[in-house]
Amino acid sequence: MDFAAMQCSIAHTLDVVGESWSPLVVRDLYLGVDRFDDLVRDLGISRALLARRLDRLVEHGVVEREAYQDRPVRHRYRLTAAGRALVPVLMAAMAWGDRFATPAGGPPMRLRHRGCDSPFTPTVCCSECGEPIDADDVEVSPGPGAAAGPGTWVLAERFA
Amino acid sequence: MDFAAMQCSIAHTLDVVGESWSPLVVRDLYLGVDRFDDLVRDLGISRALLARRLDRLVEHGVVEREAYQDRPVRHRYRLTAAGRALVPVLMAAMAWGDRFATPAGGPPMRLRHRGCDSPFTPTVCCSECGEPIDADDVEVSPGPGAAAGPGTWVLAERFA
Repeated sequence: MDFAAMQCSIAHTLDVVGESWSPLVVRDLYLGVDRFDDLVRDLGISRALLARRLDRLVEHGVVEREAYQDRPVRHRYRLTAAGRALVPVLMAAMAWGDRFATPAGGPPMRLRHRGCDSPFTPTVCCSECGEPIDADDVEVSPGPGAAAGPGTWVLAERFA
Repeated sequence: MDFAAMQCSIAHTLDVVGESWSPLVVRDLYLGVDRFDDLVRDLGISRALLARRLDRLVEHGVVEREAYQDRPVRHRYRLTAAGRALVPVLMAAMAWGDRFATPAGGPPMRLRHRGCDSPFTPTVCCSECGEPIDADDVEVSPGPGAAAGPGTWVLAERFA
C-alpha cells in the first residue's frame, strides 16, 4: 500500500502518522512520556519498531529529536508544530472511542479546556459558523488536487 | 499488539477503525462508494483484505451490510450512526493532511457546511465555549477508566 501516492489528504495523514503505534507515540509525547526507554515501557512496543516509527515521524516533521545527555548520548523526542496540530485530531478520535468503543470503567482520560476552565468533549466544528459538524451536513466536491489514481479511481469518476 | 486491551480511547478507536485501509473504507462509504467491487477498484486493495476489514467494521458496529440483489446475492455497505460519527474525525485528519502533508496540486476535496452554506475547515473545538482547541490549552487528568497496563504503564505512574 502506498498511501503517499493517493490524492487524498486522509491517506496522506495515514501515511505520516497512521502506521500502527504512531498515534500512541504522538499521544505519549504530548503527555510528557518523551524518552525512548519510557516509550518502550509505556507501550510495550519492541525497540526496533519504536525506532522505525520515531524515524518516520522525525523524517516527516512531526517529531524532533533532542539530545539531553552527552555520555552516553540520550535523546528525548518532542512534537513539532505539525505534531502539536495533530493532538486535537487525536483528542477527537479519543472522544469517539470514549463513546463508541468505551474502555472498561469509562473514559480513561478527562480533558479540561484552560480557555474556559471547563471539562470538555473535543468536537469537530465548522471553522466558519462554529457549529458541530454532522456527516449529513457536509457537501463534498473536488478540490485543486483531485485526481484519478490509486485510492481515488472510483471517486474521481463519481465526482467528474 | 492488542489495542483493545489498552485503557486508552485512542487505542480503542485504532483497534476498531485504525487498521490499514479501514479509514479509507469509511471515507468511501461516506462518499457513496458502497459496493464491494467498487471499493476494490477505488482503493486497489485485495478482495481478501477488504473482506477482512469490512467484517471487522461490521462486527464492531461501524458498518452494516445490506443485500441489494438476490440472485446472485450482492451487498452494499452502509455506515451506522457510530460510523457516521467517525466522519468528522476523518475530516479533521483530512484537514491536517491538507496542511501538513499536502497532496500534489493542493487539497483533493473541498467541504461546504450546509448549516451556514460556507466552505469550511473542520476544526476541533471545545464543546463548552466553542473555541478551537490548541494542544497547549488542555489539561489532562485521569478519568474513571484510567488504569496501569499495556499502553499506559508509564502514564499511570505519571498521573498517579
